[in-house]
Amino acid sequence: MNYQTILDEIYDEIQPELMRGKVADYIPALAEVEKGQFAMTVTLKDGQVFSVGDTKKEFSIQSISKVFTFTLALDIYSKELYKRVGVEPSGNPFNSLVQLEYENGIPRNPFINAGAITITDTLISHYKDEYKTLEVIMNFIREISGNPQLSFDPIVARSEMEHGDRNLALARLMKSFGNFDNDVIATVMTYFKHCAITMNTEELSRSMLFLAFGGTDPITKKKFITPAQAKRVNAVMLTCGHYDASGEFAFHVGLPAKSGVGGGIAATVPGKMSIAVWSPGLNKYGNSHAGTLALEKFTTKTGLSIF
Amino acid sequence: MNYQTILDEIYDEIQPELMRGKVADYIPALAEVEKGQFAMTVTLKDGQVFSVGDTKKEFSIQSISKVFTFTLALDIYSKELYKRVGVEPSGNPFNSLVQLEYENGIPRNPFINAGAITITDTLISHYKDEYKTLEVIMNFIREISGNPQLSFDPIVARSEMEHGDRNLALARLMKSFGNFDNDVIATVMTYFKHCAITMNTEELSRSMLFLAFGGTDPITKKKFITPAQAKRVNAVMLTCGHYDASGEFAFHVGLPAKSGVGGGIAATVPGKMSIAVWSPGLNKYGNSHAGTLALEKFTTKTGLSIF
Amino acid sequence: MNYQTILDEIYDEIQPELMRGKVADYIPALAEVEKGQFAMTVTLKDGQVFSVGDTKKEFSIQSISKVFTFTLALDIYSKELYKRVGVEPSGNPFNSLVQLEYENGIPRNPFINAGAITITDTLISHYKDEYKTLEVIMNFIREISGNPQLSFDPIVARSEMEHGDRNLALARLMKSFGNFDNDVIATVMTYFKHCAITMNTEELSRSMLFLAFGGTDPITKKKFITPAQAKRVNAVMLTCGHYDASGEFAFHVGLPAKSGVGGGIAATVPGKMSIAVWSPGLNKYGNSHAGTLALEKFTTKTGLSIF
Amino acid sequence: MNYQTILDEIYDEIQPELMRGKVADYIPALAEVEKGQFAMTVTLKDGQVFSVGDTKKEFSIQSISKVFTFTLALDIYSKELYKRVGVEPSGNPFNSLVQLEYENGIPRNPFINAGAITITDTLISHYKDEYKTLEVIMNFIREISGNPQLSFDPIVARSEMEHGDRNLALARLMKSFGNFDNDVIATVMTYFKHCAITMNTEELSRSMLFLAFGGTDPITKKKFITPAQAKRVNAVMLTCGHYDASGEFAFHVGLPAKSGVGGGIAATVPGKMSIAVWSPGLNKYGNSHAGTLALEKFTTKTGLSIF
Repeated sequence: MNYQTILDEIYDEIQPELMRGKVADYIPALAEVEKGQFAMTVTLKDGQVFSVGDTKKEFSIQSISKVFTFTLALDIYSKELYKRVGVEPSGNPFNSLVQLEYENGIPRNPFINAGAITITDTLISHYKDEYKTLEVIMNFIREISGNPQLSFDPIVARSEMEHGDRNLALARLMKSFGNFDNDVIATVMTYFKHCAITMNTEELSRSMLFLAFGGTDPITKKKFITPAQAKRVNAVMLTCGHYDASGEFAFHVGLPAKSGVGGGIAATVPGKMSIAVWSPGLNKYGNSHAGTLALEKFTTKTGLSIF
Repeated sequence: MNYQTILDEIYDEIQPELMRGKVADYIPALAEVEKGQFAMTVTLKDGQVFSVGDTKKEFSIQSISKVFTFTLALDIYSKELYKRVGVEPSGNPFNSLVQLEYENGIPRNPFINAGAITITDTLISHYKDEYKTLEVIMNFIREISGNPQLSFDPIVARSEMEHGDRNLALARLMKSFGNFDNDVIATVMTYFKHCAITMNTEELSRSMLFLAFGGTDPITKKKFITPAQAKRVNAVMLTCGHYDASGEFAFHVGLPAKSGVGGGIAATVPGKMSIAVWSPGLNKYGNSHAGTLALEKFTTKTGLSIF
Repeated sequence: MNYQTILDEIYDEIQPELMRGKVADYIPALAEVEKGQFAMTVTLKDGQVFSVGDTKKEFSIQSISKVFTFTLALDIYSKELYKRVGVEPSGNPFNSLVQLEYENGIPRNPFINAGAITITDTLISHYKDEYKTLEVIMNFIREISGNPQLSFDPIVARSEMEHGDRNLALARLMKSFGNFDNDVIATVMTYFKHCAITMNTEELSRSMLFLAFGGTDPITKKKFITPAQAKRVNAVMLTCGHYDASGEFAFHVGLPAKSGVGGGIAATVPGKMSIAVWSPGLNKYGNSHAGTLALEKFTTKTGLSIF
Repeated sequence: MNYQTILDEIYDEIQPELMRGKVADYIPALAEVEKGQFAMTVTLKDGQVFSVGDTKKEFSIQSISKVFTFTLALDIYSKELYKRVGVEPSGNPFNSLVQLEYENGIPRNPFINAGAITITDTLISHYKDEYKTLEVIMNFIREISGNPQLSFDPIVARSEMEHGDRNLALARLMKSFGNFDNDVIATVMTYFKHCAITMNTEELSRSMLFLAFGGTDPITKKKFITPAQAKRVNAVMLTCGHYDASGEFAFHVGLPAKSGVGGGIAATVPGKMSIAVWSPGLNKYGNSHAGTLALEKFTTKTGLSIF
């Protein structure tokens, strides 16, 4: 299949959609991003890369970072992790306290905010302090992305913290149920830092490749997690990767993927390739409007849905 | 791959699990089913069938019938259907009124009870009366199963109705929101009738084959729905097929599948095969305990997860 | 105190408010009532009556009838009743299913719809059939009101039933929890009939007199319930009498009272008098806008709050 | 009426109940209080005091302090206060986040924890800093109680803070909705301090006297709030004073009152007297078991219900 042609087609077709949706505006640093931008990259097993659009433009990966911290925690904790966080779709907004209270402080899955903060908390417990933890997370993402210079945007992280009361409330509520081990402020700050990592679609697509190939990077041959673990990360992306619209995404796109409010979406086609797309205008569920459509076009054109 | 050997292994390994779980006991007709029974059937594209256990034993397919009515409605209504029922996992028990009230009478998906009753209601609107509708449903399932004698158990259906107040409440609540067109009692009775269809695993596995192959039966070549529609049915099975445990099922098994409280589970491996398993002991989520484990063993042994 | 002067003052002051609010419009029969009407009547222990406005105009008492059916049930059942219906404010709209589901089919109090339907159900169980029950209810209200001709409006009752799906859903949900004894349709129909009773403010005020005086009509000396029971009816009116705005009503008015969507409010000043007010424009909580203000003016002018 | 005789009777009758219920045990300082203790005090307009039991024994007033901070805030803010906190019964546990999230960070009433923390926050805004605020609160309670030595137990306050994650979560959630002005930690600490005030029943009964008499202490003649304000405080106590059991309390006791998990209950009989009762065993709603019964006996024996 000629992936470059397909990406070029998508690029043309998606143009009328680029100004639709709404850029995340709850913090100034994200609100300043200009709408109308778009990039998409496909990475194959052998390292071939196909791209269109602003593929060198860095964006804030935000919730996509949850896939990487979950991967790290999965490798460290295995079964014990599931006493602290589930793998069920929540059916509620990503930052809701309601379900967390009804379910005694156990977050539904690692991709809603409460669950991701729990994951960061478990990593801090394992690596003993938040600085070491952040370093481990950064080094892991640098390694899988192939860019040793990757870093997070401190202005975004600080701004998130200034508007972070809802996430601090989630952390406090979990602590009140005994499902939180470390300092609330330090943990949530670490969480905001890994959410503030900036990447472009080429780096992000490259970062997902090991998940498309059973946990082992097919280019470097480095094994990060087992095939069974990789399948599970993909399964959780499929059922929980798009907040309240995960079912819609599975229905229309049919790929394991995770979105972030920075406008990025990272996806895998298990056994075949990884994909990253970016466009900052968000639909009402907080997922990239044009990014979601681009992926739907991709699976329609290629027949590469998992279903 | 030698599927018969794999099924035989699963059969041996699953024996210690067969007496676990709890047979559905909310109606007498289901409560009388003996625990300890097990059957599993795999059907390939070319019609090859592999089976173990009590594969001739008929059981009540219950909620698995929702896959077939959704398929029928999907073909008739296409996009309009989604104004009346969503495709999101609900995060709540299958018969909850809470979410339905919060969301103004629009059921989350076609596999929770409210959603399935809505689907039956749309079919009755299309086919004008409930008898014609039931006939269409029965004939469709007879055709895909390859058994023209299939019928429903009238004792089970009547008993469901006698204990059907919760489902009648769901229907009334939808009617109060204007999301219900036909007579409440007649519609819910029709719903109970199609839930009371009895099949064995060979028939059930055969019935799912068209969904594993893009909507066209690979043996008879008859096209029931488009490939895009078949993918969508599979997607909804993956995200919503196991009530409150859909995420767990995706995580552990990794196949589109639908369970019923009669102990059956019907699954597809898109592009490869369909599978049916039956064992009446249910886990706490209402899904077959041994059936779920058997499918997990199957994807582990064969590597045939979609992830 | 010169009650006639006070009522006259209130009548003048309330004029600018009479066109505000919104007449109940969920059924045609209620929607036709003209806004701008107002009546208020005070009845003293010795039978003195003070009135202003359209005090001969009949209106649908709607939920105010719940006070009378609760009184009847209280006298028959005493303690056993509280296994089937609570006495707590609900904190939710009057017709919500959410709380009813969370609390296993036990309505919070006898003044939300579910609770009042339960009360009607208990009365039917006691009086064996719905016709006898309705007769007992009618005769009781005829007796306390002093008008042997009182009846209900069959057009209103039938129209309520035609739009009664929400209430039927509540009844079905209670039945699914085992908290319902009689036929759902017949019971809800009986409930709608007693809600459709029409009275004017003089009759309604007279009807409340026994509740202001410990359960015994101070004029006829007939004892209907014990002083302890009368206190309890007053207590439930205070905490639950105005749906979601019961706290506001206690805060601003400070009297035990019950409102109906027909625009009526019936109140007691324990040990002193009973009051009825009517004005069909409703505030956003479904309580008479001008009626609530008139009662607030009354307690401010007279100092007759219970607090 | 001979109040001493009545209190003596209650004292005798209540003995079998004193070991029932459960002492608050979420912090060590409260868990150490011995069950089986009881005290009750009635204070009349003219300063006459009637007491039984351990009336010199100091206990932690806990949530009863919310009545006093609400009184202070009411006098300062008047109408603006109701934009930040309602006056409706909540129908939910005192520390639930669910309703607070659904209702956009506006607590239902000033007596649930979120509402009381909001009140403390408004006082800090008014008095500029938390130390000045605490001093104002302490001085106010010292004045109304007649004991200039009253103070709070710092061990209880610190221990509350150590177990204060739930309350911090409530405060954070309100802050995320913009309904919080001051530092979260400092405000919640101030809240815990005023909850940790210790009093005996004679002091507590004395403290409530101004609320029973229209906001003016009938002995010192000092006016604290207006009669209209006093009525409103009484109204909120009646509808919201006992958490999830406020309706039950109104139903059985029929007096405006506020309970605390330290086992105290403070009540008013408007125009007649104030009452305090203490017994540390709590019923399942967190209200003093024997204290509630003693008040029920009191209103039954004296006929002094407000209804």
